[in-house]
Amino acid sequence: MSEPLHILSADQFDLADLDRLMARSAEMEKALAAGGDPICQGQILGALFYEPSTRTRLSFETAMIRLGGQIISETDVTFSSAVKGEVIEDTIRIVGGYADVVAIRTQHKGEAKLAAHYSPVPVLNGGDGAGEHPTQALLDLYTITKHFEIGQRPLTVSFVGDLRYGRTVHSLAKLLSQFEGVKINYVAPEVIQIPDEYLRDSDEKHHELSDEVLSSSDVIYGTRMQKERFEDMEDFHKVKHAFVFSPEMVEKLPEGGKLLHPLPRAGEILQAVDSMPQACYFEQALNGVPVRMALIAEVLGK
Amino acid sequence: MSEPLHILSADQFDLADLDRLMARSAEMEKALAAGGDPICQGQILGALFYEPSTRTRLSFETAMIRLGGQIISETDVTFSSAVKGEVIEDTIRIVGGYADVVAIRTQHKGEAKLAAHYSPVPVLNGGDGAGEHPTQALLDLYTITKHFEIGQRPLTVSFVGDLRYGRTVHSLAKLLSQFEGVKINYVAPEVIQIPDEYLRDSDEKHHELSDEVLSSSDVIYGTRMQKERFEDMEDFHKVKHAFVFSPEMVEKLPEGGKLLHPLPRAGEILQAVDSMPQACYFEQALNGVPVRMALIAEVLGK
Amino acid sequence: MSEPLHILSADQFDLADLDRLMARSAEMEKALAAGGDPICQGQILGALFYEPSTRTRLSFETAMIRLGGQIISETDVTFSSAVKGEVIEDTIRIVGGYADVVAIRTQHKGEAKLAAHYSPVPVLNGGDGAGEHPTQALLDLYTITKHFEIGQRPLTVSFVGDLRYGRTVHSLAKLLSQFEGVKINYVAPEVIQIPDEYLRDSDEKHHELSDEVLSSSDVIYGTRMQKERFEDMEDFHKVKHAFVFSPEMVEKLPEGGKLLHPLPRAGEILQAVDSMPQACYFEQALNGVPVRMALIAEVLGK
Repeated sequence: MSEPLHILSADQFDLADLDRLMARSAEMEKALAAGGDPICQGQILGALFYEPSTRTRLSFETAMIRLGGQIISETDVTFSSAVKGEVIEDTIRIVGGYADVVAIRTQHKGEAKLAAHYSPVPVLNGGDGAGEHPTQALLDLYTITKHFEIGQRPLTVSFVGDLRYGRTVHSLAKLLSQFEGVKINYVAPEVIQIPDEYLRDSDEKHHELSDEVLSSSDVIYGTRMQKERFEDMEDFHKVKHAFVFSPEMVEKLPEGGKLLHPLPRAGEILQAVDSMPQACYFEQALNGVPVRMALIAEVLGK
Repeated sequence: MSEPLHILSADQFDLADLDRLMARSAEMEKALAAGGDPICQGQILGALFYEPSTRTRLSFETAMIRLGGQIISETDVTFSSAVKGEVIEDTIRIVGGYADVVAIRTQHKGEAKLAAHYSPVPVLNGGDGAGEHPTQALLDLYTITKHFEIGQRPLTVSFVGDLRYGRTVHSLAKLLSQFEGVKINYVAPEVIQIPDEYLRDSDEKHHELSDEVLSSSDVIYGTRMQKERFEDMEDFHKVKHAFVFSPEMVEKLPEGGKLLHPLPRAGEILQAVDSMPQACYFEQALNGVPVRMALIAEVLGK
Repeated sequence: MSEPLHILSADQFDLADLDRLMARSAEMEKALAAGGDPICQGQILGALFYEPSTRTRLSFETAMIRLGGQIISETDVTFSSAVKGEVIEDTIRIVGGYADVVAIRTQHKGEAKLAAHYSPVPVLNGGDGAGEHPTQALLDLYTITKHFEIGQRPLTVSFVGDLRYGRTVHSLAKLLSQFEGVKINYVAPEVIQIPDEYLRDSDEKHHELSDEVLSSSDVIYGTRMQKERFEDMEDFHKVKHAFVFSPEMVEKLPEGGKLLHPLPRAGEILQAVDSMPQACYFEQALNGVPVRMALIAEVLGK
């Protein structure tokens, strides 16, 4: 039996993979509008969440249902088997034996990879602590491709907020680095700046969100301060309100500019922004379904 | 795109609506006996519960499954996305984008309406704090219509227990007020009496459950003391055992009289009552499935 | 209407029942390999868990899905309806009215039987406190039948660990006692030894896991110390590391010997054992699906 295909890290995709996945996601979006595409009938997605997440879990589940499949779900593993002392290696072997594919969210970096190592079926990393969140990065990228000709024309993306603990930032930055002509600004106080391992020569670090950054960013990618991952709560309280997007700030984006955010937001974007044409975060969240449909189909070889 | 049809309050139904819904519920009950009616195949119900509720959630889910649909479910939103600070407006926009219809239970009055305002799909209010619980009221009404010719003949309904915080009482009282010849007694200590806004001229307030009230009530509707909603725990402890239905009390109902209760009960009805012909609360709970099937079909235009 | 058929205790099965269930489980295992056997289409399994259990619940749910059915699930009843003071008799009457079959896990011995008494549909006991766990015992037995000709040839089974609170031990011991030629060793410190009610004349009690026991056991059945059921935590800490299976110990089993464990393990088996041919606990866990498919089919008369 060949090794199952896992989705673990943004690192695993080359440009050809990304092109294929984006095209498949677009097909899935069309199929969705017609009610779905039942290519996974008779198959089960196991959702194994060691940390709660309404959005990510429900969009994985919706994706599988729209593909004609079924769901088994454990929404708080730490309060069930894990409380009896079970290690992730054991849990995945079992749930991977029940289901045909497993979406997993774990508390610590590296645990999705560990799970994949022991799983008899494909594992989809739905976020591993402060590590990666590749399916989110792919839906972020899909959202960008719907509005910009990435790779064909220059594109400036500015990440703003918690760039240290924000795993979606780490994963998306890796994907963007595959494309020609993408310039990245990292805007954050030093304590939550992007770890050096993600920084390329062409990238810029900023501490303030200047008008210049705003007016030159095709895409602003805001993030929530990951309170639950800060080691020092004083650090958190110093930076928690560092960036709050108001209509006035968002107006400064160039023509066609878009504000993305992985959600949930915790005050980083005023509700007054929601109805502006730049606001793209709800559309982005809904793109989670077609992109995860494409990923499930991909790993199941459908 | 036209506005989705929501089920938010008992206020929204006129007599024609109620007649139609009761007839549809009766059809659904027949269909159920034959295994269901798969008119919602390919559609998803999102269950979004900010407060736990086994009965209400599972009956919504059962209703959707019996209609051939599928479920995505978040049983404790306050411990997942809400814990990261997400407002209900954001959550409903997303889950309403995944699902075709959303059943929601919230902690505070008015939140179901707020959710509906932002939802792209129909919202079914499964209880909003001390506000309303219209789907429960409709199943209560359905239960009454199965035993009494409401509107055709005089009917006396006595609400007994926590009439202040008991949202099912508020919603059902509104529905009953649509019908000719319904007299309502509100029986409760003053601290938990019915709020004046629900009181009509023909209604009566009582502080004690007298033999006279018992013997003149076609329907007694008992309720649980809503401990979790009392602001003053001393008040709760004063009234918590105010009304306990025993076989002797229930015997006093007139010929054909019925004892309803939205359940769960917390000592208000002795188990010795369960086997009496007046005990109608289990049948009532099971009526939740056909009535919610009718409501889901209605809002989805099926 | 005839009484529904429940699965409550290992006591209810005679040898003919066991033969039939083992044969049906084997059929189900074959059907599973081909994607399932949709004989329960249109039927609903209610999973009602008063104690968390990833493995048991998900394998029941998987079984029902592989049979073409659907699921409604309450994973923490004590935090939903039960918190409002509802008794199990009421909950089962309602959920048993929604679903076609109910799998239940309860906190106290005897509660599954209580639930069955009030349920309108078949109840599958998924573990009642320190009482029984008959579906686990049946999958344990199924695992043994796959490797040994039980009843045809002599078989020595040694239970090792928490034999007092380990309900899977109690249930499996009862099943084994139906077969000719099965000798049982109970290996545990006195404080967690097997209760006398389960002990037969041919059984032996040991306090230590001697080389003699190891080398004469066709099947070793290890168990987790049921920390949550100990009345005295000092007792727990004295015995918690009483038995830890290492590769050296497992090597001592006779040719073809197997190490079983109901999982989760909490240190009783070193991970180095996992890849040994004697390690049978993951296969055992996966056998939960075909065995529970057979049980669901049995009680639904399919």
